Amino acid sequence: MTDAVVDGKLEVVKQQATKYVKETENVAEKYSAMTVSKNSDMNMNVGELQSAAFTAVPTLKSVKKIQFANAEDKQEFQKYPTKAGRRSLSRSISQSSTDSYSSDMSALISLRKRAQGEKPLAGAKIVGCTHITAQTAVLIETLVALGAQCRWTACNIYSTQNEVAAALAETGVPVFAWKGESEDDFWWCIDRCVNTEGWQANMILDDGGDLTHWVYKKYPSVFKKAQGIVEESVTGVHRLYQLSKAGKLCVPAMNVNDSVTKQKFDNLYCCRESILDGLKRTTDVMFGGKQVVVCGYGEVGKGCCSALKALGAIVCITEIDPICALQGCMDGFRVVKLNEVIRQMDLVITCTGNKNVVTREQLDRMKNGCIVCNMGHSNTEIDVASLRSPELTWERVRSQVDHVIWPDGKRVVLLAEGRLLNLSCSTVPTFVLSITATTQALALIELFNAPEGRYKQDVYLLPKKMDEYVASLHLSNFDAHLTELSDEQAKYMGLNKNGPFKPNYYRY
Amino acid sequence: MTDAVVDGKLEVVKQQATKYVKETENVAEKYSAMTVSKNSDMNMNVGELQSAAFTAVPTLKSVKKIQFANAEDKQEFQKYPTKAGRRSLSRSISQSSTDSYSSDMSALISLRKRAQGEKPLAGAKIVGCTHITAQTAVLIETLVALGAQCRWTACNIYSTQNEVAAALAETGVPVFAWKGESEDDFWWCIDRCVNTEGWQANMILDDGGDLTHWVYKKYPSVFKKAQGIVEESVTGVHRLYQLSKAGKLCVPAMNVNDSVTKQKFDNLYCCRESILDGLKRTTDVMFGGKQVVVCGYGEVGKGCCSALKALGAIVCITEIDPICALQGCMDGFRVVKLNEVIRQMDLVITCTGNKNVVTREQLDRMKNGCIVCNMGHSNTEIDVASLRSPELTWERVRSQVDHVIWPDGKRVVLLAEGRLLNLSCSTVPTFVLSITATTQALALIELFNAPEGRYKQDVYLLPKKMDEYVASLHLSNFDAHLTELSDEQAKYMGLNKNGPFKPNYYRY
Amino acid sequence: MTDAVVDGKLEVVKQQATKYVKETENVAEKYSAMTVSKNSDMNMNVGELQSAAFTAVPTLKSVKKIQFANAEDKQEFQKYPTKAGRRSLSRSISQSSTDSYSSDMSALISLRKRAQGEKPLAGAKIVGCTHITAQTAVLIETLVALGAQCRWTACNIYSTQNEVAAALAETGVPVFAWKGESEDDFWWCIDRCVNTEGWQANMILDDGGDLTHWVYKKYPSVFKKAQGIVEESVTGVHRLYQLSKAGKLCVPAMNVNDSVTKQKFDNLYCCRESILDGLKRTTDVMFGGKQVVVCGYGEVGKGCCSALKALGAIVCITEIDPICALQGCMDGFRVVKLNEVIRQMDLVITCTGNKNVVTREQLDRMKNGCIVCNMGHSNTEIDVASLRSPELTWERVRSQVDHVIWPDGKRVVLLAEGRLLNLSCSTVPTFVLSITATTQALALIELFNAPEGRYKQDVYLLPKKMDEYVASLHLSNFDAHLTELSDEQAKYMGLNKNGPFKPNYYRY
Amino acid sequence: MTDAVVDGKLEVVKQQATKYVKETENVAEKYSAMTVSKNSDMNMNVGELQSAAFTAVPTLKSVKKIQFANAEDKQEFQKYPTKAGRRSLSRSISQSSTDSYSSDMSALISLRKRAQGEKPLAGAKIVGCTHITAQTAVLIETLVALGAQCRWTACNIYSTQNEVAAALAETGVPVFAWKGESEDDFWWCIDRCVNTEGWQANMILDDGGDLTHWVYKKYPSVFKKAQGIVEESVTGVHRLYQLSKAGKLCVPAMNVNDSVTKQKFDNLYCCRESILDGLKRTTDVMFGGKQVVVCGYGEVGKGCCSALKALGAIVCITEIDPICALQGCMDGFRVVKLNEVIRQMDLVITCTGNKNVVTREQLDRMKNGCIVCNMGHSNTEIDVASLRSPELTWERVRSQVDHVIWPDGKRVVLLAEGRLLNLSCSTVPTFVLSITATTQALALIELFNAPEGRYKQDVYLLPKKMDEYVASLHLSNFDAHLTELSDEQAKYMGLNKNGPFKPNYYRY
Repeated sequence: MTDAVVDGKLEVVKQQATKYVKETENVAEKYSAMTVSKNSDMNMNVGELQSAAFTAVPTLKSVKKIQFANAEDKQEFQKYPTKAGRRSLSRSISQSSTDSYSSDMSALISLRKRAQGEKPLAGAKIVGCTHITAQTAVLIETLVALGAQCRWTACNIYSTQNEVAAALAETGVPVFAWKGESEDDFWWCIDRCVNTEGWQANMILDDGGDLTHWVYKKYPSVFKKAQGIVEESVTGVHRLYQLSKAGKLCVPAMNVNDSVTKQKFDNLYCCRESILDGLKRTTDVMFGGKQVVVCGYGEVGKGCCSALKALGAIVCITEIDPICALQGCMDGFRVVKLNEVIRQMDLVITCTGNKNVVTREQLDRMKNGCIVCNMGHSNTEIDVASLRSPELTWERVRSQVDHVIWPDGKRVVLLAEGRLLNLSCSTVPTFVLSITATTQALALIELFNAPEGRYKQDVYLLPKKMDEYVASLHLSNFDAHLTELSDEQAKYMGLNKNGPFKPNYYRY
Repeated sequence: MTDAVVDGKLEVVKQQATKYVKETENVAEKYSAMTVSKNSDMNMNVGELQSAAFTAVPTLKSVKKIQFANAEDKQEFQKYPTKAGRRSLSRSISQSSTDSYSSDMSALISLRKRAQGEKPLAGAKIVGCTHITAQTAVLIETLVALGAQCRWTACNIYSTQNEVAAALAETGVPVFAWKGESEDDFWWCIDRCVNTEGWQANMILDDGGDLTHWVYKKYPSVFKKAQGIVEESVTGVHRLYQLSKAGKLCVPAMNVNDSVTKQKFDNLYCCRESILDGLKRTTDVMFGGKQVVVCGYGEVGKGCCSALKALGAIVCITEIDPICALQGCMDGFRVVKLNEVIRQMDLVITCTGNKNVVTREQLDRMKNGCIVCNMGHSNTEIDVASLRSPELTWERVRSQVDHVIWPDGKRVVLLAEGRLLNLSCSTVPTFVLSITATTQALALIELFNAPEGRYKQDVYLLPKKMDEYVASLHLSNFDAHLTELSDEQAKYMGLNKNGPFKPNYYRY
Repeated sequence: MTDAVVDGKLEVVKQQATKYVKETENVAEKYSAMTVSKNSDMNMNVGELQSAAFTAVPTLKSVKKIQFANAEDKQEFQKYPTKAGRRSLSRSISQSSTDSYSSDMSALISLRKRAQGEKPLAGAKIVGCTHITAQTAVLIETLVALGAQCRWTACNIYSTQNEVAAALAETGVPVFAWKGESEDDFWWCIDRCVNTEGWQANMILDDGGDLTHWVYKKYPSVFKKAQGIVEESVTGVHRLYQLSKAGKLCVPAMNVNDSVTKQKFDNLYCCRESILDGLKRTTDVMFGGKQVVVCGYGEVGKGCCSALKALGAIVCITEIDPICALQGCMDGFRVVKLNEVIRQMDLVITCTGNKNVVTREQLDRMKNGCIVCNMGHSNTEIDVASLRSPELTWERVRSQVDHVIWPDGKRVVLLAEGRLLNLSCSTVPTFVLSITATTQALALIELFNAPEGRYKQDVYLLPKKMDEYVASLHLSNFDAHLTELSDEQAKYMGLNKNGPFKPNYYRY
Repeated sequence: MTDAVVDGKLEVVKQQATKYVKETENVAEKYSAMTVSKNSDMNMNVGELQSAAFTAVPTLKSVKKIQFANAEDKQEFQKYPTKAGRRSLSRSISQSSTDSYSSDMSALISLRKRAQGEKPLAGAKIVGCTHITAQTAVLIETLVALGAQCRWTACNIYSTQNEVAAALAETGVPVFAWKGESEDDFWWCIDRCVNTEGWQANMILDDGGDLTHWVYKKYPSVFKKAQGIVEESVTGVHRLYQLSKAGKLCVPAMNVNDSVTKQKFDNLYCCRESILDGLKRTTDVMFGGKQVVVCGYGEVGKGCCSALKALGAIVCITEIDPICALQGCMDGFRVVKLNEVIRQMDLVITCTGNKNVVTREQLDRMKNGCIVCNMGHSNTEIDVASLRSPELTWERVRSQVDHVIWPDGKRVVLLAEGRLLNLSCSTVPTFVLSITATTQALALIELFNAPEGRYKQDVYLLPKKMDEYVASLHLSNFDAHLTELSDEQAKYMGLNKNGPFKPNYYRY
C-alpha cells in the first residue's frame, strides 16, 4: 500500500472530523457531545452515516495486504484463546455511558492539570493499541498535553467509534482504525502505526498484546530500545509473563490489569450493577423470590450475589476454593454442588473463568423457563456447543436471547449464546473506563520517568502509591474528603504521610 | 358505521389470527409464542407488519364517527386529568416480560383448573375495557372457561397488541381494538363493545373508568341492571367514589386497585426493580457512591430507596408525612428538605403523586450532570413546563433522555420528560400483571356469585379472603409451601383455617 | 389495712425519695440519673438496697388483705391468659436503655412545652396502672404539667423501680407500687389507687386492663362517669372489645396499641435489633452462615429476618397467611414447612402468636446444638411443656439458657424457657418507650378534650392525626426535617397542610 | 522454687481435674461441659470456687522468684507497647461462646481424625504459650493425638480457665498457669515450661512472642535447635520480623496472623457482629436512625459499617487511604473528615490502629449523649488521657461505661475507657477461635514435616494450600459442599485439583 493511499485514508478521516469537532475548551465535553450525537446517529441511521462518511474506506480495504513473513507468523498471531473474548468487548465499549461523561472522566482532566507544568512525558513517543472511544480520546489528549507524541491503532476490529477516530486525527494524532476492520486491516493498521519514517516509538501502551507482539517480532530494534510497555489485559499480561519466563522480555513492562482499583471496579463493583442490567435488558425477569445459583464466588460472583440478594432473589453458590466458599457462608449464601440444586433454579449464572461449568447434562435437568448466562472470563463456561444438536430447537426471540427448546417443549433461555452477559447486554460505566485510562497514563509516566535501575527487564505490578493516586483522583467525583495523617500519627504508624498506606499483601 | 364494515374489520383481525395462532393445549404458551414473535417483529419491521395485516383498518377509520349527543358530553369524557397517565402505560405493557411468561401467568391457569368444574361465571356477560395484551388474553380465556361470555375493548389507544386482538377474535371473543386508535376510534370501539343486539352485559371490568362512564351515560338501563363493576385504576376508582358520593352508583363496585397484593407489587416490589432498570436503560449511570434524593417515602419511594441503597448509592429522602419520615429514619435514610441538599445531588427522583415537587428554582441550583426523573403518579411532579423557556436549550440525546442546557453550559439530564420512568423506560414484569388479572377474575366471580345483600350500591375493597387467595395462587411460582393451621391452633387464634388470617386494618 | 399503715408505707417511699432526688430543672435528667444509679446498684448490691430502703414494706405486706367479694371474682381477675406475658415484661423494662435517656425522651418534654400554656388536662383526674419506671415518671410529670391530677399503681408485680416510685411520691403524686408485690399486694394497690376520699377519677390509663376491670367491677359509678379510657396492651384491648361487644362499655375507650408508630416500633424496628441482642447475650452464637428458620412473617418476623439476613445468616420462613408468605418470597426468603427443614437448622425462632408452633416431635428431630427461642406473643409457641418429661435432662447453663439433653446426648439450647426472648434477654430502648408514653399522653388529651359526640361508648383507634403528631415529636431525635406542603400542593392533593396525610386504610 | 513446690502446684491442679473431667469419647464435649459449669460457677460463686479449689496457689506465689539476669532484661520483656492490648483479650476469651461449642470446634476434631493414622507430630516436643481455655485444650489434645509431646504456659495473666488447666494436667500435659498470675508468676511459668530435665523442646507455639523471646534469650541452645516457631499475634510477628531483620532469627518461623481466614474472621466477620453486641450490652442504644461515623475503613471498619447500615444507622466514614475511601464510596458511605460531622454524630467508632484519631477538641464538640468507642488495635485511638482533667467529671454508670461530664452538663458516653470494645464488652465466638487453633496446628505440622530447605531462617506466611485447608475443615459447620475440579477443568485452569487455587497476591 502506498503512502498516497494511506494519506487518502487519513484525509477521509480528517474531513469527517471537521463535520464533528466543536470548538470548545473542555475536551471532555467535546468528545461527550460527539458520542452523544453518534449514539443518536447509530439508532437512527447507522447505514446512512457509514455510506456517507466512509465511502473511501471499504474501497481501500481490498487494496492493502499485510505481509506475513510466513504462515507460522500468521498463525502465531491468531492462536491466543481469548481473542474472541477481547473482540466481544467492542459492543460494551461503544455503548458505554455518555450522559455523566464529563464528570466521570474528570480524573484524567485533573491529572492533566496537576502534571501539565512539568510535561512529564516530554520526549515520550507512544504507540498505543486500545479500543478507540471517546474515553480513549481523552486519554490520548492527556498524554499529548503532558508532552508525549502519540500514534494509535485499535485493539479490536469492531469497537472503533469512527467519529472519535476522525476527531483525533483532526487534532494531529495519527489514528489507524475504523469500525469493522477485517483481520488483515487489523494487522495493517498496527503496522502503519509503528512503521513510519523519522519517528521511532519508545513507549508501548497495549490492550491485548497484539501491538507488543508485532513490535517484538517485526521491529526488534524498536522493541529493544523501548523504555517501557504498559499492558491492560489479562491476555496481554499472560503473554508478557511468558516472554519474561522465556528470557525474551528486554523491556520493563507494567501489568496494570492487577491494580487494586482496576480489579475492584472491573469485577466487583461493575458486575454488581451489570448483572442486574444485563438480565433486565434481555429478559425483564423479576428478581424478587427467584431461585438463583451463582457458580464461582470470586470478585465477579461476589458482585452478582450481593446485587441479586439485595433485590430479593434467593441465592446459592458453587465454589471449588474453600476460602471463597467460607466467605460465601459468612455472607449468607448456601454453598452447594450444582447438581444438588439445578432442578429448582430459575436462574443460573457462571462466574468462574473455567470451562464446562454448566454441562449438557445439567442443562437437560433445568426446569422450563430457566435462564442461563455467563459473567465469567470465557464463553466456554456454559457448554453451549452441546446445545447445538439436532434434537434441540433454537429460537432467537430477540437480540442476545435464544430459547433452546427440548423435545418435550421445555425451554431454556440462553443469553448472549454463553458469551459475557455484562459486555454483550449491558454497558461499562464511563467511571470504570476512567479508572483504567488514568491507571494507564500513570503507568506510562512512571516507566518513562523512573530512574535507571528502578525497573529491570521484567513485568511489574503498578506501584501501590500509583494505585492510591488513581483512587485519589477519582474521589472528587463523590465529594469524598480524605483525612490526612498528622506528623505524629504518620510516625506512630511508620508511614509516609503521602502513602503508600498499606503493605503489598494487603487484601482490601 | 355499518355492520358490514365492522364485520370487515373483524375479518381482517381473524385472518391475521390464523397466521399466528399455534394449536397447542397450553394457552399461556400460545400467547407467549405470539408475543415473542411480535416482539421480534416490532424490532424488525413494524411498518411491514402493519401495512400487511391491517390494511383495511386505517381506511375504515375515516368512515366511522362517534355520535356524541352534545359537546358537553365529549368534553366530559376528555377532562380526566390522568388520561395521559393511563395512555403512557401502553409502552410498558407492550414491552412486558415474555420469557418467563408461561410460568408467570400460572396463577390464572391454576384458578381456571380449580374453578372450571363449577363454571362460577355461567350466565355472566362481561364487557371489558383494559389493555389488550397477551396477559389480558389469558384472563379473557379464563373468564370464558369459567362460563362467561365476553366482549372487549381497549382502555388505551396505543397499547393494543394487534396479533393478540386477532387471536382472541379467532377464539370467538369480539374484540374492538387496534394499536394506534384515534380518540374517535377509541369511543367508537367502546360503544361497539357494549351496543350489540340480543346481548346485554351484566358485568363490567374496567381500567380507567371510561367504559363504566360510557355505559352509565349512554346505556343507563344496562348500567342499572348490571350485577357488578370491577375497577382497576386509581382514576376509575376515584370516579366511582364520586358517583357513589353523588348517590348515582346503583351497582355494587369493587375497587381492586387497593388490594394488598396489587398495591405491594405495583408499588413496592415492582419499583424496587424498575428504578434501577429505568435508570440504566436511559443513562447507564453507575449507582455506587452516587448521592441520591428520593422525594416521597411511600411504597414507591421505599422500593426505590431500598434498591439504590443496596447498590451503594447514598440516599436521603424528603417527606411531608411524619410517620413515613420516621420510617425513613429507621431504615437509615436522612430526612431532609430538598433545598438543603439539591446542590450536591447526582440524582433526584420524585415519588410523591404531588405536583411541583421539584421546582424551576431547584432545577436551577442542581449541579452539572444531575439526573432528574419521576416514579410517582403524575407527570407534574417535576415542573417540566418551567424548563421549556427560551434561555434553556433542550437536546434530545436519545429516546426518553433530554439534556436541558443552561446558559452557562450546565446540563441537567431529564428522563421521559418527567413522565413515569418505570412505565416509560422499563417494563412491567408479567408476574405483576398476573397478580392484577387474577385479582380481576376473582372480583368478577365474587360480585357475580355474592348472595343477595352482601354488596349494596357502593364501592368495596376486595374481601381479604380473596386477596389472600390471589396471593396463594402465586406462591407456586416460588415453590413456596404454606403451613396449615391445626384445628387446635385455629381455635386458639380464633381463625378459620382457610382464612382470612388478619383483621382488615392489618398493615402488612 | 388502716390508713396509718398506708401512710407508713408512703412515708418509707418518701424517705427514700429524699435520698435520690437531685434538684434539677431537667426532669429527664433527674430520672435518668436515678436509673443510672439504680442500675449500678442492681449489679452491685441489690440485696443491700432492698433491705435498707424498704424494710417496712415486707413487714406490711402480711397485714393488708384484698377483699374479693367471692371466689368467682378472684378467679375472674386471674384467668386472662397473657397475664404471665405481661408480667415477664418487667425484666425488660427495668433494663431499658438509660444512657441515651434524656434525648430519647425528648418527645414528651417537647409535648409539654408545646401544650403547657393551654393546660389541656386541667380538671383531669387520672388513675394510671402501668409499669413504673423512669420513663413512666416522665409521662406522669408531663400529665401533671399539663394540668392533670394523677394517682398511680403498677401493672406488674416485678417491674416497679422503687426509687422512681419514691421520687414520684416525693413530687406529690400518690404511687402505690413496689418491686416484688404479691398477688394480693397487687390488687390492694390498685384499690388504694382508685378508692380515696374526696377525689374521683375521670380518666383511666391502663396497661393490661386490670385497673379498668377493677373500676368496672368495684366502682361502677366511677366507671360510668369517666370521660375516657386509654388502653395500651393487646390483652387490655381485647377485654375492652369484649366489654363493648357485650354492650357494657359505657365509656369511650382508645386502643393505642394499634397505632401505627407503636406497632412499627414495638414490633418491626424493636425486634430487628432485639433478636440479635437477645441471642448474643444468651448464647454468643455467630450469625454468619447459620441456618435459621423464622416461624411467622408478620412485623416481628420481618424484623428478625431482616436483621439475621443482614448479618449473614441463611434464613427461611414458615407462614400460614399467603400474603405474608408472598412478601417473604419477594424479600428473598424461602417459604417452607417446618418439617421440611427442621433437621438442618441451627436456630429456630417463633414469631406467630400461636401455640405449639414447634412441637415435641420437631424438637426431637432437631440437630445437636440447635438453638430454640420465641419472639412471639405467648410462651406457648414452643411446646416447652412436652420437654419436661423424664427421659430428657435439663441443664441450666446460665441465666435464661437451658440445655435440654436427649438420651443419645443431643442437646437443644432453649432460651428463656420459651418465653419472649426480647423481653427476657434483651432490653427495650427508651426511644420505643417514649413513643408509647407520648401516644398515651395524646390519647388522654384527645379523649378529655373531644367535643361532645365525637366519641361514643366504643373502642377507637388513635386518630391518624394524633399518630402523625406522635411521629413528628420524635423526628427531632434524628435531626429529620419535614417538608411542608404549599397551599397549591395541599389543594392538588386534597389534603390539609397539617395532616392527616393518608387514608385510614393506608398500610405504611 | 523447688520441684517439690511445682509438683505441689500440679497436684492441686490434678485434684481439681478429677472433680471436673467427665469420661467421654468426645473431647469437645468434655471441655464444653467443663466450660459450661465454669460459666455458671462464675456467675454464682467465683469467689467460693477460687478459695476452695486453688487455696494452695496464692500461697505458693510468694515463694517463687524469676531470676532476671539484669535489669535490662526485665525491661526488655516489658517494653512492648501492645502488652496491655494482649492482656485485655483475656476477658473476651473467657467469655467466649460455649453453647455451640462442640460443633464449632469440629474442625480440629476432624483434623485429628484425618491425620491420626500418620502421627505427623511424632517426635515433636512443643512448648506452647497461649490463652488457656477450653478451645486451647482441644488444640493441645489434638497435638498430642497427632504424636506430639507438649508443655504449656499462659500468654496472659488473667485469661486462664483454671479448671481447663486442671483437666489438661489430668491428661498428663504439664500446664503452668492460673488465673490471676502476677508479672513474676508469668515469667516463672514460662521458664518452668521450657526448663525441664531430660526434655528439650523442638517446636514453639507462641501468642505474643514472650515465650519465643524467653527461649531466645535464656536458652539459646534450645532456640538454635528448634525446628520451627509458630506465632499468632501482631506483636509477636512484629518481634520476629525484627529478629529476622537483625539477622538473629536462626529458626524458620511462621506468621499465622496474616493467613486469609484468620484475618477475615478476626476482623471483618467477627467485628461485624461484635460491634452490635458490644454497643447493646453496654448502652442498649437503638441503632435505627442513629448518625454514626466510623474512623477507618479497613476490614474492621468494613465489618462495623456493614452491620450498622443494615440495622438502619446512617453511617459515614473517615479514611486516610484513597483506595479504602473509594471502596467506602462504592459501598454507599459518605467519606468525610471527622471535624465536618463531629457535632451531629450519635456514635463515634474508631478502627484505625492509629493514635489520637479522636482528639480532645473533637470530644469537646460532640453533642450531649454521644457514644464514643474503639474497635481498633490500640487504646490510644481516642485521646482518653485528655479527658482525665479536672474540669471534667467522670461517672461510672456501669461496668465498661463512663459518662464524662462537661461543665455545661454535656455527657459523652465513653465505653471501655477507649480500649477495644469487642474484646472488653462482647465475646469472641468459638468458631473464630477454632479457625485460629486449626491454623496453629497445621502450621506446626507443616514446619515439623517440611523437607530440608523448604523453609530457611526467616518468617513465612502460611502456605496458601494450608490456608485453604483450614477453610475446608470449617465448611462442614455450614453444611457447605465444595465443587471439585474435573481433570479437564484443572488442566484448563492450570491448577492442581487440590489447590492452591489462587495466586499469592489474590485479594479475596
